[in-house]
Amino acid sequence: MAALKLVGLSGSLRRASHNSALLRSVQQRLAPGKLLDTPIDATLDILDYREVPLYNDDIERPASVQALDQALRDADGVILATPEYNYGVPGVLKNAIDWASRPAYKSAFYQKPVGIMGASPGAIGTARAQGQLKQVLLGMASQVFPYPEFNLGQAGQRFKDGELTDPTTLEFLDKYLLEFTSWVARVRSGEENP
Amino acid sequence: MAALKLVGLSGSLRRASHNSALLRSVQQRLAPGKLLDTPIDATLDILDYREVPLYNDDIERPASVQALDQALRDADGVILATPEYNYGVPGVLKNAIDWASRPAYKSAFYQKPVGIMGASPGAIGTARAQGQLKQVLLGMASQVFPYPEFNLGQAGQRFKDGELTDPTTLEFLDKYLLEFTSWVARVRSGEENP
Repeated sequence: MAALKLVGLSGSLRRASHNSALLRSVQQRLAPGKLLDTPIDATLDILDYREVPLYNDDIERPASVQALDQALRDADGVILATPEYNYGVPGVLKNAIDWASRPAYKSAFYQKPVGIMGASPGAIGTARAQGQLKQVLLGMASQVFPYPEFNLGQAGQRFKDGELTDPTTLEFLDKYLLEFTSWVARVRSGEENP
Repeated sequence: MAALKLVGLSGSLRRASHNSALLRSVQQRLAPGKLLDTPIDATLDILDYREVPLYNDDIERPASVQALDQALRDADGVILATPEYNYGVPGVLKNAIDWASRPAYKSAFYQKPVGIMGASPGAIGTARAQGQLKQVLLGMASQVFPYPEFNLGQAGQRFKDGELTDPTTLEFLDKYLLEFTSWVARVRSGEENP
């Protein structure tokens, strides 16, 4: 099987985002010459959606949306790493998802394997945002990675200079990625050889 | 007591939005020489947030955000009329809320009386989006209007030429507005004379 193509979206656009850093950690641990010894080869491309406008059904899908949509369609699996804003999914991430959700049940997210993770400074580690995100993903008929939640609280203590350094978290991340890549491979293989 | 200043946000930016039409109905029924005979005078200003950018903590709050924030702060109460996108709150509306949610617990939404309504073409009438929105509002410590949900399904049959025409819905809307304006007046009066 060819290496899995994974793409990641961070729910935060700020430069020093913990969730973007988390995705960079995923990237490093999966990259060729990788830190993580998975039986399944996989790479992660982090998608930039800063140029995506506010969703409006009246306007033509601009190039930024088409690029996002195509990258999601081409991917074997998606990882969403999100902060929690006001007990919910950040508007910016939901807005990107809203664009990519069309046409309904034929969208880039339809049947797509998706894993969720999230980091936040507080104790809850984005649990509420992740709950809402699962409703949204299942609403689009995505396949949601069945796994204990990756709720990374006290993010301030687990990252250093924009890099995830906490050994316990890295261990949990590696386990998550081993399971996630195996699951995506199984899902994709089942689609190819039903 | 001076007339209540209410502001409304529609969760959809498209021109023919049912939710924007719903807010225009609210406006008409409350306006001077109004259709609805409330004991409490109130006006509704519909806020335009098309120019609000994607939330990013790195950037300075632009004029569009400052104007939105100030209008919300100046209001006695807020009405959110929202469609449901992918079983959740539209990203565009959540993005506007995310901007207006700062600083935490000192924001425009802090303790603000907020009513929710929603219209959709389907049967559910935005019930799931409204559930998520309540979590978000209570997360910001807004005061959420305690009232049966205004879930307007089959919107296609209830509006005509961009106007709410269904008599049953108008009756429900009038009742809602009577209760809502009384509640906002009570809340505000309690704040002024504790």
